[in-house]
Amino acid sequence: MMQHIEENALIARIATMLPRSLSQVNTLQESDAEILRLPGLDNLMLAVTTDAIVEEIESGLYANPYLLGWMTVMANLSDLAAVGAEPLGLLIAQTLPHGISGADLASIQTGIRDACLQAGTCVLGGDTNFSDRLHTTGTGIGILSDGRPLMRTPCEPDQLVFCTGLLGMGNAFAALRILGHNACESFPYRPSARLREGRSLRSCATACMDTSDGLIPTLDQLGRLNRCGFLLTKPPEELIAPAALQVAHATGITPWMLLAAPHGEFELVFTVHRNRLTDLQYSAQQAGWTPLQIGIVTREKGITLQNRGTLSEADLASIRNYPLNTADERLGFPRFLAGFEARWGNPTKQ
Amino acid sequence: MMQHIEENALIARIATMLPRSLSQVNTLQESDAEILRLPGLDNLMLAVTTDAIVEEIESGLYANPYLLGWMTVMANLSDLAAVGAEPLGLLIAQTLPHGISGADLASIQTGIRDACLQAGTCVLGGDTNFSDRLHTTGTGIGILSDGRPLMRTPCEPDQLVFCTGLLGMGNAFAALRILGHNACESFPYRPSARLREGRSLRSCATACMDTSDGLIPTLDQLGRLNRCGFLLTKPPEELIAPAALQVAHATGITPWMLLAAPHGEFELVFTVHRNRLTDLQYSAQQAGWTPLQIGIVTREKGITLQNRGTLSEADLASIRNYPLNTADERLGFPRFLAGFEARWGNPTKQ
Repeated sequence: MMQHIEENALIARIATMLPRSLSQVNTLQESDAEILRLPGLDNLMLAVTTDAIVEEIESGLYANPYLLGWMTVMANLSDLAAVGAEPLGLLIAQTLPHGISGADLASIQTGIRDACLQAGTCVLGGDTNFSDRLHTTGTGIGILSDGRPLMRTPCEPDQLVFCTGLLGMGNAFAALRILGHNACESFPYRPSARLREGRSLRSCATACMDTSDGLIPTLDQLGRLNRCGFLLTKPPEELIAPAALQVAHATGITPWMLLAAPHGEFELVFTVHRNRLTDLQYSAQQAGWTPLQIGIVTREKGITLQNRGTLSEADLASIRNYPLNTADERLGFPRFLAGFEARWGNPTKQ
Repeated sequence: MMQHIEENALIARIATMLPRSLSQVNTLQESDAEILRLPGLDNLMLAVTTDAIVEEIESGLYANPYLLGWMTVMANLSDLAAVGAEPLGLLIAQTLPHGISGADLASIQTGIRDACLQAGTCVLGGDTNFSDRLHTTGTGIGILSDGRPLMRTPCEPDQLVFCTGLLGMGNAFAALRILGHNACESFPYRPSARLREGRSLRSCATACMDTSDGLIPTLDQLGRLNRCGFLLTKPPEELIAPAALQVAHATGITPWMLLAAPHGEFELVFTVHRNRLTDLQYSAQQAGWTPLQIGIVTREKGITLQNRGTLSEADLASIRNYPLNTADERLGFPRFLAGFEARWGNPTKQ
C-alpha cells in the first residue's frame, strides 16, 4: 500500500467535495499550476496557481519583510515555470498587522517589486486586509501559447533526471534561521523562478516539478504520481550549491539533509527520454542555461543514492509527514534533522 | 479637495510601488476585477480578481463555516459579474486552524461547493496551510469573449442609476450577528453573484460596481472615480429587501443604515444613458431579470436623498473610514450605527 502523505490526503479530501472543471487539463496534483483550455481556442491554454505564505511567516522563517514580498511572487512564478507558462502577471492579497510600520510595509512591496522586475512581470491587482497576523497570498496567471504544458507526469523507467541548477539553498537558509545562526541575515537566499528554463523544456522534458519542497520530497511526489522511483547518480555534495555546502559545514548538518528537508528553492527537476537528450542540450543552450543531470528513473519505487542505500516509500512518507509546523514551531526543524539522522543514519557516510 | 478614503490611500500607496502591466485595460480601482488583453487576440480578454476573507472572520461576522465557504466563492464571482465576465473557475487558498474539526472543514467545503454549483462554476485548485487563524483567499478567473468589459467608469450626469435587486441584506445580517440577536442563525443571508445580470449589462450599461461594501460606499466610490454625485429618487424603504426591513424594525436600526453601513451583498449598481433604456429593458428581459431604478447621476458631488438632504464627500469619507475592525471589533458596528445617527441624524425622518 502506498504510504499516506498527510498533505496530499487533506488536499484529496477537500478536492473530492468540490466540483472540478471540464476544461481543466490536469488532474489533482498532476501539475505545479492548474492548466485550462480556453473555450474555442485550440492552442492557447491558461496556467493559474495560488500560494499563501503562512507557515513560513509563523515559524519565523520569513521574518524579513523584503524576503516575504519576494517569495510571495516567486513561489507562484515558480509554479508557472514548472508548467512552461509565460506569466501575464500576479494578484497579491496582503493581510497586514494593524500596527505594521511604514518601513515594513514598504519592504514587503519592494520585495514584490524586485521579484516582478527580475522576472519581467507585474502585479495586476490584489486585496488588502488587516488582522493581528501578517499573511500574504499570491496568484500567478500565465499562458501557454502553443497548448503544450509541462506536467508532473508522465515519466518512465530509464529516463534521465535533471535539474536546472544546484540545490540545497532553501534548507540551508532554513537551518541558519531556525538554529538562530548569525550568518542568516547575510545568507544569499533570493531564489528565482526558472521561467526561461521551464519554457525551453516544453519541447523535450517528459515530467517537471519545482523543488520548492526540497529535492527528496519533490522526487517522492514525482515517484508517487508516476509509480516509479529514482536513482541519484551523483553524491549529495555535487548537487548542492557552494553557499549551502558551507552552511552544512558550519552547522554540522550533513549535506544530505539539505536535499531531504522540506524547505527548497525554485529549481526545476525534470525527466527526459534518452533519445531527446540532444534536443534538451540544444533547447537549453538556445535559452542560455545548462542542465545538470542528477539521476535516472527506476522501476523500483523509493529513492536510491548510488552505492549507499534506498529510502523506501515509507521512509519518504515519514520525512514528508514530519510536523515542522507544530505548536512550538521552532523545534520542528532541528528535531527533524536529529530524528532523520537517528532513524536512517546518514546515507552519505555509509 | 477630495476627502481621503483610507483604504483607497493604502491601495494607492502599495500600488505606486509595484510595476503594472501594459496589457491591463483598467487603471487602479477602475473596475471590480482586473481586465487583461491576451497577446495576439483582439476580442478575448481575461478578468481576474482576488479577495481574502479576514476581517469578516475575525469580527465574528462569518462564524458559520458554511457561510465562509460560500462567501469566499461569491465575493470573487461578484467581482467577475461586475465586469460582465464569464467565470472559468476559482482558486481557493485555505489557512486552517491546527485543531479544526472535521465537521467545520467539511462545512467550509460544502459552502464552497454549493456556491460553485449555484453559479455553474468550479474550483480549479488551491493551497492549504495551517495557522492558529482561519483565513480564506479566493481568486476568480473569467473571460470576456467579445472584448467588452464593464468598468466602474464612465458615467455622466443625467444618466439613470439602477441596481439588480433590493439591497440591505448584508448590513441586516451584520447587525443581527454583531448585536448578538438570536434571529441571526435563521436569517437568509446567502448572497449570489449577479453573473447573468452582469453579462447582459455589457451592451447597455456605462458604469457598474457590486454592492459588496454597501450601497452608499459603492455610490461614493463611483462618484469619486467619475467626478459626479447621485440623487436617490426612491425612499430607502423601497430599496431594501423585505427580510432586511424586518431586521430594521426588530432592532431599531433605521432603514437608511442598511444602505450606509459597509457590509453589503452582491447586487450590481450600474448607470445607463437615457437613450439606452429600451436596450436595457430588452437585455434584462432576455436574461430573465428586472432592473430596479434607484436614482440619477448628478453633476453635484455627494449623495442626495430626494427632499431629505445631501451627504457630502466629507460625510461619505467619514462613513467609509469608520474603523469597524478595531482592537475591540464587536464594538465597531454598533458604534458606527450610533455615531452615524448622532452625527447626521436620520435623513429618512427629516
